[in-house]
Amino acid sequence: MKAGIISIGTELLLGEVVDTNASYIASQLPLLGLDLQSVMVVPDRIRSLVEAFEQAWQRSDIVIATGGLGPTQDDLTREAIAQLLGEQMTVSTNLESDLRAMFAAMGRNMPPTNIKQAALIPSAQAIPNPRGTAPGWWVEKRAKIIVAMPGPPGEMQRMWEAEVMPRLRAKLPGEVVLLRTLKCFGLSEAEVGEKAGPVFAMGNPTIGVYAKPDGIHLRLIARASGQEKAAALILAAENKLRSTLADQIWGTDSDTLESMVGKLLSAKHLTLATMESCTGGLLASTITDVPGSSAYFKGGFVAYTNEMKTSLGVNARLIERHGAVSREAAEAMAQAAGRQLKADIGLAVTGVGGPDPLEGKPPGLVYVGLADRENARSVEGRYPPRRADVKRRAVTQALVILHQELASR
Amino acid sequence: MKAGIISIGTELLLGEVVDTNASYIASQLPLLGLDLQSVMVVPDRIRSLVEAFEQAWQRSDIVIATGGLGPTQDDLTREAIAQLLGEQMTVSTNLESDLRAMFAAMGRNMPPTNIKQAALIPSAQAIPNPRGTAPGWWVEKRAKIIVAMPGPPGEMQRMWEAEVMPRLRAKLPGEVVLLRTLKCFGLSEAEVGEKAGPVFAMGNPTIGVYAKPDGIHLRLIARASGQEKAAALILAAENKLRSTLADQIWGTDSDTLESMVGKLLSAKHLTLATMESCTGGLLASTITDVPGSSAYFKGGFVAYTNEMKTSLGVNARLIERHGAVSREAAEAMAQAAGRQLKADIGLAVTGVGGPDPLEGKPPGLVYVGLADRENARSVEGRYPPRRADVKRRAVTQALVILHQELASR
Repeated sequence: MKAGIISIGTELLLGEVVDTNASYIASQLPLLGLDLQSVMVVPDRIRSLVEAFEQAWQRSDIVIATGGLGPTQDDLTREAIAQLLGEQMTVSTNLESDLRAMFAAMGRNMPPTNIKQAALIPSAQAIPNPRGTAPGWWVEKRAKIIVAMPGPPGEMQRMWEAEVMPRLRAKLPGEVVLLRTLKCFGLSEAEVGEKAGPVFAMGNPTIGVYAKPDGIHLRLIARASGQEKAAALILAAENKLRSTLADQIWGTDSDTLESMVGKLLSAKHLTLATMESCTGGLLASTITDVPGSSAYFKGGFVAYTNEMKTSLGVNARLIERHGAVSREAAEAMAQAAGRQLKADIGLAVTGVGGPDPLEGKPPGLVYVGLADRENARSVEGRYPPRRADVKRRAVTQALVILHQELASR
Repeated sequence: MKAGIISIGTELLLGEVVDTNASYIASQLPLLGLDLQSVMVVPDRIRSLVEAFEQAWQRSDIVIATGGLGPTQDDLTREAIAQLLGEQMTVSTNLESDLRAMFAAMGRNMPPTNIKQAALIPSAQAIPNPRGTAPGWWVEKRAKIIVAMPGPPGEMQRMWEAEVMPRLRAKLPGEVVLLRTLKCFGLSEAEVGEKAGPVFAMGNPTIGVYAKPDGIHLRLIARASGQEKAAALILAAENKLRSTLADQIWGTDSDTLESMVGKLLSAKHLTLATMESCTGGLLASTITDVPGSSAYFKGGFVAYTNEMKTSLGVNARLIERHGAVSREAAEAMAQAAGRQLKADIGLAVTGVGGPDPLEGKPPGLVYVGLADRENARSVEGRYPPRRADVKRRAVTQALVILHQELASR
């Protein structure tokens, strides 16, 4: 079945607010087996809205709209749907009393304009919205469905998950759709695509290859008449992929490198310390994005100067001989971080963030060092020389190496 | 004049890639005095593409498309425009030789499929793209304009700035549009909006108030028949705003807090060191996002444990008495950071990142400490208790305090 998305709001057309609702809903539709035909972003003008609904209604079985359900004059989604279907809006006494109760609970009187949010048309049912004053609309007519949800992402996503997704599932043919993402690092998109060749040939699941900041993601979507069949299709494809990409796959679905590393450190009762120069604190910040990371992360040093590095125990002559951007420095920094903070593992990054070269070395050149109490090793990386990208890639590289080390123990 | 945007690519409809091109272009159009009618996101299917171009062509004077200019079979933007206008595509020998030269420079033979990228129709001129193999198309017919640009944001933005924007300016009526953004911190969106009241009343420039991660932005857009008149309108409004928001405005236009702080540190020949707990390195990382920050940033400590704090010179009894999340600890951490790294100014953050309370203190409670060689002071912040938000807000708060301190010296 075909679906269309309409994102409503003049603010979305001023470039000041990025429309994240459309991509959220777009990512959900494959799970329902729905084929997205188009996304339209339209301003709060009744003519533009009716036109957009007409077009989407014509080319889709299901139209999903967000925004324009507020209480003010320029919130016109309800009006546009009523006009499209040639129906009259009337205030629902049930919705009105719900709305008044919601304001009363906040200790406020309901402003008169909010009465709009209690309006319905004969083909529409209200969809509850515990997070805001705007109920959604579920509209069924001539074997088609229109769903209108509020624009604030928190309200919309809750409504989608708790209300809209289950209703759509119940309406749609009994097909089950399962999704699985495998996350890789260390090969190019083209190389991963090539190794995934046999899975492309399977057809079901379908496979998509996407380049992401933390590596290459493989997305499998299986469709079958039942849960078990779909799961078996996914498993067969995943096994095929794991047989050729075993060394590259580091996680699945909502895993992040930092959460995977955190789990492994906790499970193996190991602690971690960092020392970083070109990443400037982003490595430590990424590691501590994980709630509970204080259990295994002992701390970090942002050692921007050689003076700071040597005061923390990196040999000054080693820096003189090899430079601060070198395998040797990366390993010595990792060792020093571990020693200083009495951590089992030290992880270090040194490199040239750019835009200017450093010590005659080019922007984008990075060394990651990893050390435990006995050994140290390092890896060289060369990245596109844009400061923000160098930082992000170097952090990913460091977490990948740490993950490999922990997984192999 | 009216404009429409078309973002092309099936990947944009799978929810795997967020379309940032549309919002980038949308933010640029007011500068040209163009009124954006709609954004459409369409898949790589010829029928959908032609339909989208037809609709946009009908309702707009200028249609701006991104994506679908690659060399593969599913890159169909050129074909769709040709079909819309009923024109034939032919390979331009000039473009072909440019393309072959580009591949030769990379030491590669041109794959045969890339010849598509040298195609034109009679109404189209090629727009140079030094960053990739896909030239853009500039199409003029029946007093309307279609611009097609490549999808990769780096290629698109360069083409927009260097080629498309100047050509559009030359084509459009002589109105000048000037834009000015003032950036504030420390008041709510509603409070800033209220103080900006007199400027709202001016009408020209128009004013928009936007909540952003680094505070509240005020965006002024002035339209006039000449550059000087527009500049005078902006100046009048800016002066009004500065008279009521003097203490809150920290920068304009493309300024970031970290770049402003960097400029002031450089100008005043001062150096900086950091010590942070709950922000986990994000403060140092943000400071070092600025190229050249190594000139004033001496380094930072991510002191996640009390042990590390005391080893760096924070008094253990002070932590015992007041807790690690306290004004006293924040000030002592700032002093210790400055002392350890012989920096003129120490900046520190301590707080509860969440989701769990710490020392009986709630998630979202943060103290920022600032110290020079003589004095220390601190500020308390309470933020929505989501880990990522707490980190981001605490870093902003720390940079605002540092900015105030530096600006007052």
